Amino acid sequence: MALTKSRLKSLRELTLRKYRDERRQFIVEGVRLVQEAVASDFTVLEVYHTADITDQPAGRALLARLAEKTAVIHQTSTREMEVISETVSFQGVLAVVRQKQFAVDSILTRRDTSSLIVALDGVSDPGNLGTMIRTCDWFGVNGVLLGRNSVELYNPKVVRSTMGGVFHLPIAGGVDLLSTISRAKGMGYRTFVTDLKGETHFDLVKYPARSLVIFGNEAWGVSDQLKDLADVHVSIRRYGAAESLNVSVACGVVLSAVHRLFE
Amino acid sequence: MALTKSRLKSLRELTLRKYRDERRQFIVEGVRLVQEAVASDFTVLEVYHTADITDQPAGRALLARLAEKTAVIHQTSTREMEVISETVSFQGVLAVVRQKQFAVDSILTRRDTSSLIVALDGVSDPGNLGTMIRTCDWFGVNGVLLGRNSVELYNPKVVRSTMGGVFHLPIAGGVDLLSTISRAKGMGYRTFVTDLKGETHFDLVKYPARSLVIFGNEAWGVSDQLKDLADVHVSIRRYGAAESLNVSVACGVVLSAVHRLFE
Repeated sequence: MALTKSRLKSLRELTLRKYRDERRQFIVEGVRLVQEAVASDFTVLEVYHTADITDQPAGRALLARLAEKTAVIHQTSTREMEVISETVSFQGVLAVVRQKQFAVDSILTRRDTSSLIVALDGVSDPGNLGTMIRTCDWFGVNGVLLGRNSVELYNPKVVRSTMGGVFHLPIAGGVDLLSTISRAKGMGYRTFVTDLKGETHFDLVKYPARSLVIFGNEAWGVSDQLKDLADVHVSIRRYGAAESLNVSVACGVVLSAVHRLFE
Repeated sequence: MALTKSRLKSLRELTLRKYRDERRQFIVEGVRLVQEAVASDFTVLEVYHTADITDQPAGRALLARLAEKTAVIHQTSTREMEVISETVSFQGVLAVVRQKQFAVDSILTRRDTSSLIVALDGVSDPGNLGTMIRTCDWFGVNGVLLGRNSVELYNPKVVRSTMGGVFHLPIAGGVDLLSTISRAKGMGYRTFVTDLKGETHFDLVKYPARSLVIFGNEAWGVSDQLKDLADVHVSIRRYGAAESLNVSVACGVVLSAVHRLFE
């Protein structure tokens, strides 16, 4: 049952961005996340699991579901998996999934009456990026534009922190935000940028049916060029002594108000 | 200039909870955070820095400030510091600070007209705990009660993620939340618990001048006993497909509404 050396090597390579980019694949770990991958329209290529995941009903259901798909299923050992697994303790199942390319235009030109888009400029911490995608997923954001200066979407820590959000939302990666947001404005989007010095409090503005909200880097926020381009600079009122809010917390605070304040 | 073996050993011990608890000390790293420690009423016991931090004005100002205090200052090498430093790259300065004990009663019996207290029940991820303290610090929370089942406040990753909040807010650790919150209710606090199934939307309730908001564990939320004790169960409306929000994001969303909705 042992995996061949070349297969293990190929799996281990997927922990590096270079090979993920080249092969347009990524790794998904744990029963919950592999379930999400299977339930989505992403293509699950290969699955590796230990014998004991069939001890849990969720594990058995997952394997049955995978058998219906065309995924190649390998039984393996925890020891083998720990060589390539990113999480501290291997969770019994791991899938190789094909990356999806979402075109910016398909995200911006939705037919629904309302469209709430989030753009992320230079987010550098994988946990923050994943948490922001999870937050967008909670608040019903319709699509995410990930600037080319942000951490990679398919980084294993990002995928894990999205808690499935990566499979629920269209996310375009490597986006040139300056030209794209400029085009979005031409398409009728009102653009909001979060800014410590923003002149408008986030819960006092109206968000029209086409709204695009931009969040920035952990240390220096949104780039000056994007700030200049945005229609509205929103801030979150401070009542205490902290210098700033964590960017994924700020993202949640602003998005929690958007639906309530939709025009 | 090399540090003695016993001093290095003693510093390295402070990366372990056992010794932090025993000696009631903790470690603070980097110019920004050591500045915060010095500016606070915490006692800075010892400082270790490399020669080159005097190259930056902030580093020079910090050393001058420390000289006025009674801290013992050691110049050292990056190599020595990397043995004990928790962060990926040593930031040139590290302080040993005395822990502070805040009594629950001093937090609950404030003389101000309003008092907003946050209780944390079983938060297990250090990054989440630190981010929640930072968020409390931003939104002007007056004190934090940290349940005895939560991760330790003086864990280096918690301290770092607070971004200085640990020095700005009174935080009582190891609190028996059940008896304490019961007492708080007797003192006139209205108690709110965040709950995925809460019957009241967080931005539709009024928060009276004495409000206490409880947040729970990343996976299972607030314990059933605390839920039963709380006056109001609040939820955050979901518009998308995510199963839950990250707890520090939920904390920010709820706290952002409290001042606006103060009675």
